[in-house]
Amino acid sequence: MAKFMDVHSGFVGVTEDQLREAHERDLAIEESEGVHFERAWLDPESGKVFCLSSGPSKEAVLRVHDKAGHPTTEIYELPIEVE
Amino acid sequence: MAKFMDVHSGFVGVTEDQLREAHERDLAIEESEGVHFERAWLDPESGKVFCLSSGPSKEAVLRVHDKAGHPTTEIYELPIEVE
Repeated sequence: MAKFMDVHSGFVGVTEDQLREAHERDLAIEESEGVHFERAWLDPESGKVFCLSSGPSKEAVLRVHDKAGHPTTEIYELPIEVE
Repeated sequence: MAKFMDVHSGFVGVTEDQLREAHERDLAIEESEGVHFERAWLDPESGKVFCLSSGPSKEAVLRVHDKAGHPTTEIYELPIEVE
């Protein structure tokens, strides 16, 4: 399983409830693609959302977002992580 | 304390050891700004690095990166997080 960060734009002014509802639409269908969305962070001022996920491929992650109704094309595979 | 994601570009081909060394330069001085860098992720193919941190302000986070020798201008405050 690889790890990914994808980025969405245009979520200016979105609330925590709205982000949670969008994230739960991903969680509801992610298993069909072997994906898990771990966390999502929102900057409501710039409208950026960052989603951290694990899964078999970029394409699988993007398919979940597509089906859940919030597609993006900006995604990065993250083979290296430090803390 | 607020949470932040900052983004760096140009790290194409960087190794885990190199990312760890850069991250440890942040950790060594972060206390002076009241910042903590929680995690950093690297996509060595695109050269993107994402750093998740907490601290008092965007400016404080960016000052740590500046002093550690890897400045960026792309940073987002993340008041909303879901998992």
